[in-house]
Amino acid sequence: MKIRDIGEIGLIKRISRKAKYGKSVVKGIGDDTAVLKWTKDKYLLYTCDMLVEDVHFKLPQATPYRIGHKALARNLSDIAAMGGKPKYALVSIALDPGKNVSFADGIYKGMSGLAKKFNLDIVGGDISRSKKLVIDVSVIGEVEKNRLTLRSGARPGDVIFITGLIGGSLKGKHLDFTPRLAEARRLVENFRISSMIDVSDGLLLDLRRVLDASSAGARIYENLIPLSAQARSFESGVSEGEDFELLFTMDKKEAGKFLRTEFAKMESGATLIGEVMNKSYGYKLIDKNGKQRKISTKGYLHF
Amino acid sequence: MKIRDIGEIGLIKRISRKAKYGKSVVKGIGDDTAVLKWTKDKYLLYTCDMLVEDVHFKLPQATPYRIGHKALARNLSDIAAMGGKPKYALVSIALDPGKNVSFADGIYKGMSGLAKKFNLDIVGGDISRSKKLVIDVSVIGEVEKNRLTLRSGARPGDVIFITGLIGGSLKGKHLDFTPRLAEARRLVENFRISSMIDVSDGLLLDLRRVLDASSAGARIYENLIPLSAQARSFESGVSEGEDFELLFTMDKKEAGKFLRTEFAKMESGATLIGEVMNKSYGYKLIDKNGKQRKISTKGYLHF
Repeated sequence: MKIRDIGEIGLIKRISRKAKYGKSVVKGIGDDTAVLKWTKDKYLLYTCDMLVEDVHFKLPQATPYRIGHKALARNLSDIAAMGGKPKYALVSIALDPGKNVSFADGIYKGMSGLAKKFNLDIVGGDISRSKKLVIDVSVIGEVEKNRLTLRSGARPGDVIFITGLIGGSLKGKHLDFTPRLAEARRLVENFRISSMIDVSDGLLLDLRRVLDASSAGARIYENLIPLSAQARSFESGVSEGEDFELLFTMDKKEAGKFLRTEFAKMESGATLIGEVMNKSYGYKLIDKNGKQRKISTKGYLHF
Repeated sequence: MKIRDIGEIGLIKRISRKAKYGKSVVKGIGDDTAVLKWTKDKYLLYTCDMLVEDVHFKLPQATPYRIGHKALARNLSDIAAMGGKPKYALVSIALDPGKNVSFADGIYKGMSGLAKKFNLDIVGGDISRSKKLVIDVSVIGEVEKNRLTLRSGARPGDVIFITGLIGGSLKGKHLDFTPRLAEARRLVENFRISSMIDVSDGLLLDLRRVLDASSAGARIYENLIPLSAQARSFESGVSEGEDFELLFTMDKKEAGKFLRTEFAKMESGATLIGEVMNKSYGYKLIDKNGKQRKISTKGYLHF
């Protein structure tokens, strides 16, 4: 049996089934970051993301600066999805020594600009050679215990929000996006967010992940979904991925408070797109004609 | 100017010159791991290492199990060099989906066996596709503040020890080695170790790193260096790298205590190979004929 036969999700399931954790591991494989016991009041967040040339970006559309930016920003988006703040990063990079020094400088600048903006320290890394550029960044963050937002907390009756606009990210946004750290902190500091995830593999697939983790169903509305003008179509917009927006849920009371107070102030914008249902309801889209359609998840998978 | 023109060390220097750290960073780029403030008594250690197919290993000599083992073991060797204990790891992997599932299983088994042995949790990771196999592992560890061993603490008059045997590792040991965690803990728990590093790029280059960090010189003796029977020659044995032994220094009084007590009990063995000198002395090898030779550093660099 080939790896592509069981697929990316199958491979992760296969590995995580075998994983056993010590007592200090609050959450291992299966959320946006690992969650580890740390201090009395805080958890440590720990995550990594690998970028591979010709898979996650193509040269020269992706400049070195944008590649560096994206490599770190993806991780920060994961920290945001847990309600946390980033603290430290390590960078492993494999590159072609035949490239100009300015190429390496550009990657570093793209990262360090973002690190400065979000007040985190790049404290080390590893350098190797490779024909194709590969960058893996890992990040340590922190979150107050009572502000941690997992995928698993969505409850029937909760409403579903998404920040920003969805779709068409591959036309450029995926290389320049600002991770929604400020928005995430605003949310967790002021509201009880029942679940949160960052949309990296497409809205439909990532919402499915929240529903699976929460043992719930959902109903979302085609005409509420904030499609970017860059999206080729509704279908591609909700499936293509690389949006790096936050998908989050709140109970109705909390949502009311949110809509009356912070909602209009969110820099990214935020849109109510549907509600969480019982698991038995399933996972459905209400299309523009008011017709219910079962969602067969489509999203970006590596294989 | 090309990256290969400034070389691996030049590139690291270029990046670390620009690096600025917050107050919680005890040590950033420039030691075996980053060192970060954590609790009252302990520091957090944070490191990563990337393995690239055809650079760090070749298929099929390297079985999936051995690749997985090595990918984690290299990081554990870095944690050992700081006197610490590993706690958590993340694994990013880019692989060819056309490979058998047993290939991925083997890599995982190689890692999880080692993780179990040293009581650390693999808490997450990232999967991507790539023609050539790339694995990047990052590890979080911890060390008591008073047991931290940096590269920078070697002082003139200190004696220099190395664990195990040096050279010929590429014939097989580099894929199967046991990181010297137990030895490192035995050392830091019982002695004042003035400096420590793991030998990954060759004894001569890695000792040079200790001397540079400590602003010191050194004299080592050709006939004291514990050369492996696998080494092709003395020259290659001290330069080839991938030994993953510990190189450490102690003052003479502490060394006396070590020689009288734990020395003979070290599972790996340990050998006294020379002494730390003033910086003005330089870095010299006393050859088999008693002649002093200046060491022009040779070691393994990626470019």
